[in-house]
This record gives sequence, structure tokens and C-alpha cells, in this order.
Amino acid sequence: MSDTVHLSLDDLRDLIKRCLTRNGCDDANADAIVNNMAWADANAATSHGIFRLPGYVASLKSGKVDGKAAPDVSVIAPAVARVDGKGGFAPLALERGIGKLVELAKAQGIAALSLNNIHHFAALWPEVEKVVEHDLCALAVTAASPMVAPAGGTKPFFGTNPIAFGWPRKDQPPVVFDMATARMARGEIMIAARDGHTVPDDAGIDENGNPTTDPNEILKGAQLPFGGYKGSAISMMVELLAGGLIGDLFSYESGAIDNKDGGPPRGGELILAMDPARFGNPDTWLDHSEDFFAELAKQSGARLPGSRRHKARLSTPETGVDIPKTLYDKVLELSD
Amino acid sequence: MSDTVHLSLDDLRDLIKRCLTRNGCDDANADAIVNNMAWADANAATSHGIFRLPGYVASLKSGKVDGKAAPDVSVIAPAVARVDGKGGFAPLALERGIGKLVELAKAQGIAALSLNNIHHFAALWPEVEKVVEHDLCALAVTAASPMVAPAGGTKPFFGTNPIAFGWPRKDQPPVVFDMATARMARGEIMIAARDGHTVPDDAGIDENGNPTTDPNEILKGAQLPFGGYKGSAISMMVELLAGGLIGDLFSYESGAIDNKDGGPPRGGELILAMDPARFGNPDTWLDHSEDFFAELAKQSGARLPGSRRHKARLSTPETGVDIPKTLYDKVLELSD
Repeated sequence: MSDTVHLSLDDLRDLIKRCLTRNGCDDANADAIVNNMAWADANAATSHGIFRLPGYVASLKSGKVDGKAAPDVSVIAPAVARVDGKGGFAPLALERGIGKLVELAKAQGIAALSLNNIHHFAALWPEVEKVVEHDLCALAVTAASPMVAPAGGTKPFFGTNPIAFGWPRKDQPPVVFDMATARMARGEIMIAARDGHTVPDDAGIDENGNPTTDPNEILKGAQLPFGGYKGSAISMMVELLAGGLIGDLFSYESGAIDNKDGGPPRGGELILAMDPARFGNPDTWLDHSEDFFAELAKQSGARLPGSRRHKARLSTPETGVDIPKTLYDKVLELSD
Repeated sequence: MSDTVHLSLDDLRDLIKRCLTRNGCDDANADAIVNNMAWADANAATSHGIFRLPGYVASLKSGKVDGKAAPDVSVIAPAVARVDGKGGFAPLALERGIGKLVELAKAQGIAALSLNNIHHFAALWPEVEKVVEHDLCALAVTAASPMVAPAGGTKPFFGTNPIAFGWPRKDQPPVVFDMATARMARGEIMIAARDGHTVPDDAGIDENGNPTTDPNEILKGAQLPFGGYKGSAISMMVELLAGGLIGDLFSYESGAIDNKDGGPPRGGELILAMDPARFGNPDTWLDHSEDFFAELAKQSGARLPGSRRHKARLSTPETGVDIPKTLYDKVLELSD
């Protein structure tokens, strides 16, 4: 008896959509979440795929997130667009805002999209790729939920504060990285705790601020930024961009109002888009960066970010995906 | 007999100016470099102060850098300004471009300044502070000289690729960080080699790609990024922003054409400026970020970036600075 369930991508999408609409999402929100979530699974980015669905449902049930929110797009400065997410999930807000960001970046050379009052429970690489598809370079940051102590500090204060960046390639998928500025992802630490494994000694500290390799102690204490005080500075920058700049919540504020239902906290996101054809030579910039990637590839082992996802997305439309039976059963139960 | 020479800031400035003009800088370039270099010493950022002067002179003497370059500012897109540095040093190009960046950011909400064909041999925090003085948030990156192997690689490819970020404070100096994306600064490794010290085991690799704590082996091999593959991704982003986006040299290209005279390589720099008053609420954004800094300060030991420099700059106008006698004598010799 298998402990996984095999699904085509279409069946996966239907499963997610049914569950979301049964729990209070309107069609527009459900479709945007399906697009985001099934795409994560199609890219073998399973930790942001249907694995997250019970969390979405928890926040619909608790009333924290409005599954029928109608995000509102406006241009608040000549090079800045804003989406008020109205307390909904991020995907529909992103879907409605990205086009305006692309339009402004093409017109102004550089532009920003501020996403406010959203609940982000996904990866950042999907929205970065959506911008990069238009031959733009993109940078995205978001902050929420205090889990990481600043370098030199002992208490959770920063979020895991991901930063994602993308660059277009010639005739192939873009280079995109998407990384937590925490040393380890929260989920990795939870999995180590569940499986009784230790974690690296720079992943976190216990309640008293002492280094520990015990993931259970870190979950009671605090995670640490990657790369010591330098990663801590980057994490602070993410707070100031995704909170301070755009007038949304800092992670510590987001944590203070969160109802801890297991779903995503409230917060903001900032995406920047820049047009290399406006900054540099429109005829040569793409070949120039291809030269760079070719040189980088000569370094044995220097794999370009995003390549694992791009490989997966070529096969999953044929092969489908396997999801854990327990998760599948849980989703069915939530869809009743 | 003292091995340092005590100088007032005015005397320091005169010393630097005389040396630069004697070696081929015109007044405009010399004054801009003096402002930048003496300001570094006034901030106790000595590794970017008069310590760098012999390197500037070397590049004037070799003819690599034009001490009389007249940087040219243009607006190349509604939200993008460009300075063509015409093969000169960075300071005058920055001095001429920052005002336009500030003006565009205030008008458009976000703006970028591309600096091309410059030779940058200084810190990034001074230009970031100049932008932040206008109540803007700023991000600066530059890339040059291959010295750092990408994560998984073994050969120098990235520059030390600094990233600097600044945020305005209420009634006090801004928060500004400026950090190499290499694990250690090049200068720190050179000092360890000189003094016969070892360095941390993640600072670099030898010629064969093996980890080493011997700084001499690292200087023959390659430095490593901070924070493993995550820092490596950030360093790649810096290359793409300061090289690919703005149509300037990647570090490996810069290294290939450099004459190794000990002065700064050629390259580009990108500075972004964003106006929190346009993104968020103009009446509350500053207090909101002050709340954040107050919370951050509650973490014992969590010192805000830039605070050491701000403390130094309050006292050096009174106390002056001490510079090594050997450096002082060298500068006098170069000024003959």
C-alpha cells in the first residue's frame, strides 16, 4: 500500500480549487491560489505546494483572511504601483498588480510594486519570474512573523525575511533565487525536530540565548540569520523595505496581531522591476549577461539558481506529482 | 618616537589635495576625492581613508585613471539617471549624480543612478548617506576585480561586491550598513598574511580549491562569499545589477583589462533611492521606523549599523586623526 497519492497537475488543481471554494474563497481568489500552489508542486517546490493548503484553510476558517477580498490596484507615484490586498491572500493581489509593475518599469526604467494588507504563504520566486518574463530584472522581499534573532540579540524579532531576485536568460528559463535570510527555513527546523535530528550550530539559539543544535530548543528560542551579522543586516533591510518603506507591518508587529491559527500572518511585500534595455544597450545587454553565466558555469559545481525547478516543470505535466496520503486525506476532509 | 603622525582634519585634507593635484588631478576631481577620503578618516573608517591615497596615485601615474575626467550626467529614462565617469575616479561622478538621483526619486517615488566607466576605490556608505540625508532610503552596489569564488566553485570570479543600504532616522544620523559580500574584506586577509595570523576556515580556499585558514594560500587561491551559497547568490545579484543591468563590466571582465597597478579597477555602480513618503504615509513613516529601531535596540548587543562611524565623526573635528608615520612619509614622497 503506497503512502503517496499520484495526481495529474489537472487533478491537483481541481483538488485545491474545490477545497478553497468549500472554505470560503471566491473564484477569483481560489483560481489565483491554485495557479500559485499547483505551480509550486509542478516545480517540485513541494514545501510551497499543496502542503500549504491546510494553512490557507485554517485562516479562512478562523476568519483571519478574507477569501473574497477584492484587491485594489492604484498608481501612487509615477514609478510606484500599490495593491491594497484588503486582508486577502497574496496570489490575487499579485496577479492584479504585476501587470502594472511591468508597465511602469518599461515606461520609467525602474518601478516598484507595494503590496499591502496581504497574507503571504508562498514562495517569492513565482512573482519574480512573472516580472522577469517581460525581460525585466526583479527583486522581491517580504517580512512577517518574528522568528529570527538579530545578530547579537537573543529574542525572535525578524521574520525569516526572504529575498528573491531574477534575471532573464536568452531562450531559456530565467535565473531566479529565492532564499530566507534565516540560516535555515522554519520548515527544515520543524522537520529536524520531528525526526529527532540535530541542526547546524549556527541555525539558532535556545530560550536563554545560548547556541544549540537541538531544533526543539530553537523552536522555543530563536532562529539566527544566515552569515552572522552580515545576514542580519540584510534581514533588517528586508524589514525596512517590506515594512517601513511601504507603510506595512514589521515582523514584530505582524506577530503581535496574529491569531496563530497556523495560516499566514498579515504583512506587506515589495517588488522592484528594472529594465536592462533602458539602463544599458538594448541590443547587447542580454548577450552580455549570457557571457557572464557561461563563465560562471565553468566553475565546477556552480549551479545556477532555479535550475532544479526548471527541470521539474518540464516533466511534471507528463508525470504528475505524488503527494503524501495523509495530506491528501486531510485535504479531502477539509473539502467536505 | 611616535610611529603615527597627528593631523587636524584640515591638515589631512590639505595633504591629500596636494598629493592628488601633484599627480595629475584637476581641482574638481581632487576636491571630490578629498571630501570622500578625509570623511572616511573622520569617521574612523581608516581602511578607506588616506590609506588608499597611494593606490589613487598609482593609477594616475600608470595612466589607467584620468584625474581630469569630466563626468557627464544625463537622464536616460524618466526614473533613471546616468553618470558617464569618463574613466575617472568615482567621487566626482558621484558628486555630480547624487542630486539628480534625489530629484528623480522625489518626483517618481523610486529612481536609480547608474554610474559607468568609473574607478571606485572607496566605501559605499558615503554616497548612501548623501541620498539618505534627503529622507530617502538608498541601496548601492558595485562590482570589480575577481577575488571571490562562487559557492561550489574554486576560482576567483566575483568581486568582493559590497552592498550598502541606508535608512533615515529622526533627529539623528541614519542607519547605514556597507558590507562586502565576501566573508572577509580583502584588506583583512592581507593584514592577516602580513601579521602571520590564520583566518576563519570559511574565508577562502587555496589554489586547488581546498579550504584553508592560511591567508597566503587564500591570496593565491580565492576568497569565499559570506554565508555559503546564500551569500554567493547575493554576490551574483550584485554582479547583475552593477554590471549586467547598467551595461558595465562584470568583475571578471574588469579583472581581465586591469593593469594591476595597485589602484582601483574599472567598473560601474548602481544606486537606488526610494521615497518612504511616496510609498507610505508621509506623516507617520518616520515614527513607524523609529518604533522598529527602538524594539531592535532592546536586544542586548544588537548595535545599529553605522553607529561607530557616527560616534567617531563627532570627535574627530576636535581631536584630529592619527595616521601611520610610514604612510605619512609615503604621501609626502608622492607629493614631491
